[in-house]
Amino acid sequence: MNADAPTDVTISEVGPRDGLQNIKRSMPTEAKIRWIQALAGSGLREIEVASFVPPKLLPQMADGAEVVRAARQIRGLKVLALAPNLRGAEGAAAAGAHTISMPVSASRAHSIANIRKSPEEAVEEVRRVREFLDSLPAESRPSLEVGISTAFGCSIQGLVPEDFVMQIAVMLADAGAESIGLSDGVGYANPVQVRRMFTTLKQEIGDKAGAAHFHNTFGQGLANVVAALEVGVTTFDSSQGGIGGCPYSPGASGNIVTEDLVFLLESMGLRTGVDIPKLVAARAIISEGLPGEVMYGHVPNAGLPKVFHYAAGVETA
Amino acid sequence: MNADAPTDVTISEVGPRDGLQNIKRSMPTEAKIRWIQALAGSGLREIEVASFVPPKLLPQMADGAEVVRAARQIRGLKVLALAPNLRGAEGAAAAGAHTISMPVSASRAHSIANIRKSPEEAVEEVRRVREFLDSLPAESRPSLEVGISTAFGCSIQGLVPEDFVMQIAVMLADAGAESIGLSDGVGYANPVQVRRMFTTLKQEIGDKAGAAHFHNTFGQGLANVVAALEVGVTTFDSSQGGIGGCPYSPGASGNIVTEDLVFLLESMGLRTGVDIPKLVAARAIISEGLPGEVMYGHVPNAGLPKVFHYAAGVETA
Repeated sequence: MNADAPTDVTISEVGPRDGLQNIKRSMPTEAKIRWIQALAGSGLREIEVASFVPPKLLPQMADGAEVVRAARQIRGLKVLALAPNLRGAEGAAAAGAHTISMPVSASRAHSIANIRKSPEEAVEEVRRVREFLDSLPAESRPSLEVGISTAFGCSIQGLVPEDFVMQIAVMLADAGAESIGLSDGVGYANPVQVRRMFTTLKQEIGDKAGAAHFHNTFGQGLANVVAALEVGVTTFDSSQGGIGGCPYSPGASGNIVTEDLVFLLESMGLRTGVDIPKLVAARAIISEGLPGEVMYGHVPNAGLPKVFHYAAGVETA
Repeated sequence: MNADAPTDVTISEVGPRDGLQNIKRSMPTEAKIRWIQALAGSGLREIEVASFVPPKLLPQMADGAEVVRAARQIRGLKVLALAPNLRGAEGAAAAGAHTISMPVSASRAHSIANIRKSPEEAVEEVRRVREFLDSLPAESRPSLEVGISTAFGCSIQGLVPEDFVMQIAVMLADAGAESIGLSDGVGYANPVQVRRMFTTLKQEIGDKAGAAHFHNTFGQGLANVVAALEVGVTTFDSSQGGIGGCPYSPGASGNIVTEDLVFLLESMGLRTGVDIPKLVAARAIISEGLPGEVMYGHVPNAGLPKVFHYAAGVETA
């Protein structure tokens, strides 16, 4: 750990959005809300709770406004909502999201296949959302984050030039995104690439450099977290139970598992604020809301080892 | 990656010993030998193939001599055999092992529970084995490696003082072990501890500092590999399919998975010499020899991604 390493790390839980979005069945709204409450109750301070997309495309996310409104009742929780475009951002803002998260793909092939827009056109959509947000009263104005997806490679296009990823990051900063992270939704990233790209990102956009979003498709998720920590990344996306799997690889897990991530960070002396037994207990709500859904993760199976202790200040239940 | 980082990394496959030893059923000798041949055929250059312990204790390992003799026929393969004591070392040497691997536990409670010897007495056993080996003709003399088990914590004793681990390492070097590694058979290690302990180990015993043996019980295995690479570790134990699980944690995987480790290292630009599709194909022999046995690992499920390429020189089959 170098001298710049963080001692506080933010985990941005994405299970209720990224996890549930990749499951065909819908979790009942009531269960979603209880799950989000339980996640927050375990100490998570950021949760991406919904996606504002047409219900025809993602019926699992049709209750986004209701879920955001309920999550906003939780004291101290930063509520994120994903929006792919201005229309979604309007919905997320109306529901009261603290932060709007927009995905912009650095793979031209993926971007066109996914949203029928080039990466440059997607940046222009971010600019439109910025303008919309600036038209809102300051006291109810959500912040705007972007995750650059396929930043480490693409299952359609293959390699994604790193220079182009950085060009997009600079364009996004110019378009008014306040935080710009790098996302690896297919699990292709490796630690050397992670160190290099987050280092460059910080050189290019300074303190607008944002979160790391890794998937565990090839088992490399936490290895990449270690590399990202070394170069000063302080926010990591993860999903309880790694739910949602990986649509490209049946049987392979998707998002890195929050339970295992908390264990890693706390073991390394980095504070997450999360109580692991309380977090693990929240899995029961997934099983109630989506019976039989597969959950990943080692810590929930193995239990906490004798030598484990939190970096600071969290009492176990 | 710092300037001292290795570009060649040795994977020491321990599945035929550590994996099979933790499975109650016995793999037929014929299947073991075919498996070892297939592992070597995928490019692995070090395999721990057997354990020389009383057959009453571990009937799965009763065919050790036959397996060592067969493995010795494989050109270019370094054949390791585990021996807990002088008697085992005599058996391993007689069978023709290139290297004898002895475990010495740094946890007093674990050492006594396991072999009814204190750590200091276990070091004396290493000295006896050294004397025995020195009595053999140089051309047929096995080398002597030790893995310090419970080096990162113990499920019986809890914390294991790091100073004591280093004292044991120095005593082992003095007793004639040629390579002394640190083992985490319960998966307790974290990357900060890994960096610190391997750094100290190298300061204490120089180029006798040996392999890292990590388990994935809490999902931290590859994260620890990244940390160990940073401080110059160049040999890693792992097991195909992570077989053998973890006796302390039902459902939790044991050894780190060779397939995922090769993927990590090659993605980082480090040469292992291993061909992943050939390695994955060797899993079929485990299924033949131990029908229904659970295998872990992400890469075998997900397949190689479009962007993957080997660090150097390995042609895919």
